[in-house]
Amino acid sequence: MRRSAFFLPTMKDTPKEAEIVSHRLMLRAGMIRQSSAGVYSWLPLGYRVLRKIEDIVREEQDRAGCQEMLMPTIQSADLWVKSGRYDDYGPEMLRIRDRHDRDMLYGPTNEELITDIFAHSVRSYRELPKLLYHIQWKFRDEVRPRFGVMRGREFLMKDAYSFDTDSEAAKESYNRFFVAYLRTFARMGLKAIPMEADTGPIGGNLSHEFIILADTGESQVFCDRNFVDYDVLGTDVDTGDPKQVGEVVDYFTRLYARTDEKHDPGAFEQDVPAERRYEGRGIEVGHIFYFGTKYSEPLGAFYTTRDGEEAPVHMGSYGIGVSRLVGGIIEASHDDNGIIWPASVAPFDLGLINLQVDNEECTRTCEDAYSRLQQAGMDVLYDDRDERAGAKFADMDLIGLPWQLTIGPRGLKSGLVELKNRATGERQELSLDSALAQLTA
Amino acid sequence: MRRSAFFLPTMKDTPKEAEIVSHRLMLRAGMIRQSSAGVYSWLPLGYRVLRKIEDIVREEQDRAGCQEMLMPTIQSADLWVKSGRYDDYGPEMLRIRDRHDRDMLYGPTNEELITDIFAHSVRSYRELPKLLYHIQWKFRDEVRPRFGVMRGREFLMKDAYSFDTDSEAAKESYNRFFVAYLRTFARMGLKAIPMEADTGPIGGNLSHEFIILADTGESQVFCDRNFVDYDVLGTDVDTGDPKQVGEVVDYFTRLYARTDEKHDPGAFEQDVPAERRYEGRGIEVGHIFYFGTKYSEPLGAFYTTRDGEEAPVHMGSYGIGVSRLVGGIIEASHDDNGIIWPASVAPFDLGLINLQVDNEECTRTCEDAYSRLQQAGMDVLYDDRDERAGAKFADMDLIGLPWQLTIGPRGLKSGLVELKNRATGERQELSLDSALAQLTA
Repeated sequence: MRRSAFFLPTMKDTPKEAEIVSHRLMLRAGMIRQSSAGVYSWLPLGYRVLRKIEDIVREEQDRAGCQEMLMPTIQSADLWVKSGRYDDYGPEMLRIRDRHDRDMLYGPTNEELITDIFAHSVRSYRELPKLLYHIQWKFRDEVRPRFGVMRGREFLMKDAYSFDTDSEAAKESYNRFFVAYLRTFARMGLKAIPMEADTGPIGGNLSHEFIILADTGESQVFCDRNFVDYDVLGTDVDTGDPKQVGEVVDYFTRLYARTDEKHDPGAFEQDVPAERRYEGRGIEVGHIFYFGTKYSEPLGAFYTTRDGEEAPVHMGSYGIGVSRLVGGIIEASHDDNGIIWPASVAPFDLGLINLQVDNEECTRTCEDAYSRLQQAGMDVLYDDRDERAGAKFADMDLIGLPWQLTIGPRGLKSGLVELKNRATGERQELSLDSALAQLTA
Repeated sequence: MRRSAFFLPTMKDTPKEAEIVSHRLMLRAGMIRQSSAGVYSWLPLGYRVLRKIEDIVREEQDRAGCQEMLMPTIQSADLWVKSGRYDDYGPEMLRIRDRHDRDMLYGPTNEELITDIFAHSVRSYRELPKLLYHIQWKFRDEVRPRFGVMRGREFLMKDAYSFDTDSEAAKESYNRFFVAYLRTFARMGLKAIPMEADTGPIGGNLSHEFIILADTGESQVFCDRNFVDYDVLGTDVDTGDPKQVGEVVDYFTRLYARTDEKHDPGAFEQDVPAERRYEGRGIEVGHIFYFGTKYSEPLGAFYTTRDGEEAPVHMGSYGIGVSRLVGGIIEASHDDNGIIWPASVAPFDLGLINLQVDNEECTRTCEDAYSRLQQAGMDVLYDDRDERAGAKFADMDLIGLPWQLTIGPRGLKSGLVELKNRATGERQELSLDSALAQLTA
């Protein structure tokens, strides 16, 4: 993509309304624009990151045997009255009356609707288990939306639902998601720590929240350092094998990990040797629940058992804050100059900087590099604008692509270009051929 | 995907509430389920088709140089008051009041919001043209929603917006979308005919709707047969070349094409030789508009010209009914037994039918075929259920995958399997190796 054609309205000044670094950087990098309180438009740069995160979430849900579908944003109030949550939810639920005066709402979550779909579609134990998910916009009418996409009103969530014959089978489904979540966040370059959690308005018996480590996080985290060192991707767990999955879950749930809300200093000191005690800050990016028959009973989701009896299905639900993760990753990975994207979610692989567009040799070399990098399958943002070098460097650092390749007339005299690693700041002067070989290796 | 694991609740009976064939078939094939009047959940089979259509739309927008972003579903009423459309839109607009009593709405379209984003981001003629699009759910509170996803209330739309310096440049952008639309629909196996149209509530000077031919369509269509015969994909137009694009648009806009609303029998007979007069029925799937400065002036989207003057940008907007297309394609392509998917949008490439799951050789052969087809990159739905052959055949015809590969003990005695083409009904008996060779060629 040529920067001259790309819709990327970056800002030099720090927007005053933004209290936290991810919000400031997303506004400055031209990733988002607020359209009303807590509601954002995703401009092309931000949308690219959102899509990459969404794709990783999708791949790991699919890998865990979960099937994608899509429920609507607007729901009828009827099912929520049946489940008893229509009144429970309070003013955070965006309530709507349609032209025929029917009570509708903008879904803040989907337990009721998926249970209803299931109740009308599945009859027999032979059709279980079933794992279903969707990635859809939700709305929660926060009284004071803030922190940009970290606590917005309209936000993108992946929510999955499991349907099983009994609590033992349901625990296996729960474990599958547990491991899928560890993998999902690890692929985004994040350390996600599962912590025992309260079930809140979803209800239920068993729940973990997944907290990523970030110095600017909202909660304080106390955990065993083994969490930080363990590489879940390296274990390459087969999420279809309950035994393997169970072992990973057992390993993680035995270790101490609590947020300040549930922290017990005595237990921490007793359970964790001093050299393994880790204290830091964290951000919640996922939450999983097992709630048994809480929704299947009132909403009539029954199946026929092997013995011909009618029994309610055992359910769980599993959320990931997809749009929140964009902010979360920035909180975990930035410096004074801007964002530092992990390669897996970067909006482009590389920024190519032309230091002097009116210099024929320089521009010819840049065009050559641009076309060769694209042919090698790299996604390149080529800054071909007639702007000062300083402005181009600052912009590139701000938007945080993993690599910067800078080409200017002075270097070219000695046959050299400059390759910079955004994360480490390391710069190399080398020939264009060597740079391309290194980038496309 | 194994049918035993796949969430695919097909129905034998025809649902009474469905008036048109696509609605009946989508319900029977387990593609969708109504959650409230005109609002549907997309079950996994339906969602796969929706995604494939969305991806084709996306690829052709990208190819035309249009950049993807994403605006929210919920908008503030303020901009609509400024543009004057807040009152114009009437009861079809879903109006919402949030917890702070602010007037909000569920966007039925996005001219106001994109104009506002543009107004705050772009300053100079050097940044023009810009083409931006998003694929987002919209809501129109139809007084009588019906015909399933063809006239639902919550629907998925691709809407694009062009920003140009003057009307001549804007016409070039308009032409780009015109050609991108021809290509988009052709790739879905549809004949789409552009017809001069009224601009309606969007307003403006120039507008075409794109109508696909389907015997069960809502409007009657009168056109030159050259539309039906012309293969726009074959021309491989470079949408970045205004001249090539302009020639295609000129060709199509010179030919007679009108719906019954605008049909002029005298002109039809005078302009079109008898042997080229085509009459049929059609469904609107796209609509494009050039409306100049209708939104840029009230919403303050001005840019600085080469001469340093302030001037309003010239805009157009370009819609495709993504979820509507799922129904539209079925209307254009089905028979008495069910849906006939064009390969490009089929939810799976092939259905594999095991005629006797408790026969060891039969199941071993099916598993072998399943794994070899997947290795060859095909997306296979494998019916491994313990069900009657008749029920499996009926289900496969209903869901309409392009190919059916049937393996049973009787055929295997002679080393034969059966390969059926869903569209032509043609069946071949041949060896498994030959069948696989043919399918993966």
